[in-house]
Amino acid sequence: MRLSELGEADFLRELGARFTDHPDVPIGIGDDAAAIRMPDGESVLVTVDSLVEGTHFLPSTTPPRFVGRKSVAVSASDIAAMGGRARAAVMSLIAPPEIELASVWEVIDGAAEKCEELGMALVGGNMARSPAGLIVDVTVLGHTVDGRTLKRRGAAVGESSYVSGTLGRSACGLKLLQAGATLSASNGLVAPAHLRSGPLELAPECIRAHLDPEPRLALGVELSARELATACIDLSDGLSIDLVRLCEASGVGARIHESFLPLAPGLVAWEREWERDPVELGLNGGEDYELLFTSTPPLGGGQEAIASVVGVPLTLIGEVVAREPGAPVVSWVRDDGSVEPLETTGWDHFTRE
Amino acid sequence: MRLSELGEADFLRELGARFTDHPDVPIGIGDDAAAIRMPDGESVLVTVDSLVEGTHFLPSTTPPRFVGRKSVAVSASDIAAMGGRARAAVMSLIAPPEIELASVWEVIDGAAEKCEELGMALVGGNMARSPAGLIVDVTVLGHTVDGRTLKRRGAAVGESSYVSGTLGRSACGLKLLQAGATLSASNGLVAPAHLRSGPLELAPECIRAHLDPEPRLALGVELSARELATACIDLSDGLSIDLVRLCEASGVGARIHESFLPLAPGLVAWEREWERDPVELGLNGGEDYELLFTSTPPLGGGQEAIASVVGVPLTLIGEVVAREPGAPVVSWVRDDGSVEPLETTGWDHFTRE
Repeated sequence: MRLSELGEADFLRELGARFTDHPDVPIGIGDDAAAIRMPDGESVLVTVDSLVEGTHFLPSTTPPRFVGRKSVAVSASDIAAMGGRARAAVMSLIAPPEIELASVWEVIDGAAEKCEELGMALVGGNMARSPAGLIVDVTVLGHTVDGRTLKRRGAAVGESSYVSGTLGRSACGLKLLQAGATLSASNGLVAPAHLRSGPLELAPECIRAHLDPEPRLALGVELSARELATACIDLSDGLSIDLVRLCEASGVGARIHESFLPLAPGLVAWEREWERDPVELGLNGGEDYELLFTSTPPLGGGQEAIASVVGVPLTLIGEVVAREPGAPVVSWVRDDGSVEPLETTGWDHFTRE
Repeated sequence: MRLSELGEADFLRELGARFTDHPDVPIGIGDDAAAIRMPDGESVLVTVDSLVEGTHFLPSTTPPRFVGRKSVAVSASDIAAMGGRARAAVMSLIAPPEIELASVWEVIDGAAEKCEELGMALVGGNMARSPAGLIVDVTVLGHTVDGRTLKRRGAAVGESSYVSGTLGRSACGLKLLQAGATLSASNGLVAPAHLRSGPLELAPECIRAHLDPEPRLALGVELSARELATACIDLSDGLSIDLVRLCEASGVGARIHESFLPLAPGLVAWEREWERDPVELGLNGGEDYELLFTSTPPLGGGQEAIASVVGVPLTLIGEVVAREPGAPVVSWVRDDGSVEPLETTGWDHFTRE
């Protein structure tokens, strides 16, 4: 059945019936606005992100359930980058009338499921007719913890920079999806013949990282509570461009070391299989949704302590340096010892063809 | 200049520079999320609404500044319907790369301007590439006042129903725009020859109501503070459908009286000019963004008292009745005394061609 056959009124009636009450949500889906209780004394954090068919995903590579899950995750990642707790989401779903109703439910169920995993409630939304393709906009509300926030601004010369997890898993997963690989319903890899000579055992993790990213909410809260990060951003568009954003907000420069970069094993293995340099996607791949932050003094033992609490490794990747007029914002020390300006070839929505 | 010629990075840099600090917004545009201070003890209210080119507006009838202003107003109207105070907005702007940069600024400036008029701050947003046309999603955050909310649920048999303002101004304005009328930069009417025999003096108010609706925030707060409304909804899709929504949430029926309906003078005059019955658009026109609410006991003197405080008239339109199985949710008493089921022909995004 298509959405146009059911109609908006019946759809919304069924939607309301699917959602149950939630503590701290006195008014949920079905009224003009939702009401959410936040802890007294904390500021509300709010962020919005979009997934646009054709720009952010293709129906051929991203099943609708993952569109829903990912739409929540990418917005929640911005709350993680602020060191906040994510609490609630509202979804604007702009869909073509001919969309299969089952796909719409998959998107909504995926979003609700991801909200629940992250301790959030899906509290409301809006539906409208799309002229072309599916567009999902998710606004996530969170709050500060003990009044603290992590900002992009705050990095100072002499500090160290770190990233959580690994780099390039998502970009490698996207390449695998585009090459025809998929995950079955039971999460098993389905690979076409031309990929079968590659390191298949490393493929599912990369594909999952692309389809179903995990925002680093616990890490953000830990970094904020321990006052360990002087500045923080999440890696949505690629380390090269997101590091520039953090530096520009802080008025500093940065130097990173090629040999320090925690490239994902899957990325390294598959890029070698494809005879490409894995560093390129590790720097520019985007959608890793790891946290990039600066710290003073160097984390040292704190690094392992946090990693053990939040279950994600932290890796020193470089230093914060003074911003010299005319010099590149970020430079990198190559494996051969040479120092080069770092090109920022991350995603630009409007100039990239 | 087109958006694609400037690029995302430079656009966002210029955007950040345009926005100044705002009290109660410790972190505004330019970080991963915005932070907003809300009063302790109040719940946060959140709602999202979309304006989609081709569905909600046409570039030929709605200048980009009004797309921005209206996108804020329609979401704020949902906060008004909850009796809340609107405080902040985030905007998701999904634009085709070839859009004129000047149009993008008009949308953003219009939104920021409307936020300021309503005592809100535009605190953040997101931009993405659209495959077809401009899409503006605005999430508005507000908060309860003294812990109170107006809900759709709560109307009881024997109560009276009221609407604020007039009905059908916006629908009449849309017809005038579609017929080729426009407002000049100085708000003067520009009408093509075939409209010039009509009641031109009543046209600008209707066109303005369509392009630049005013959410009834002060009225919502007054109704809530005085505990005068037992249920409330804003008129976004038309009285006929929005009254059904209120009734369904409350588990009641309603009867309204044709002779009581506060049809906008412009609607009445122009529909007569066009030899149409003005009641049809008054009931089903949509986009009036007035408040529809129920009250017990009848407002009486309170009606004038509130009207004088908030500067908008309130009109008794009918009664809340028991919902009879098999009977229509809403019936109406025609001018000739006959009672008929009220057809709900308001907007459905997915079945309407």
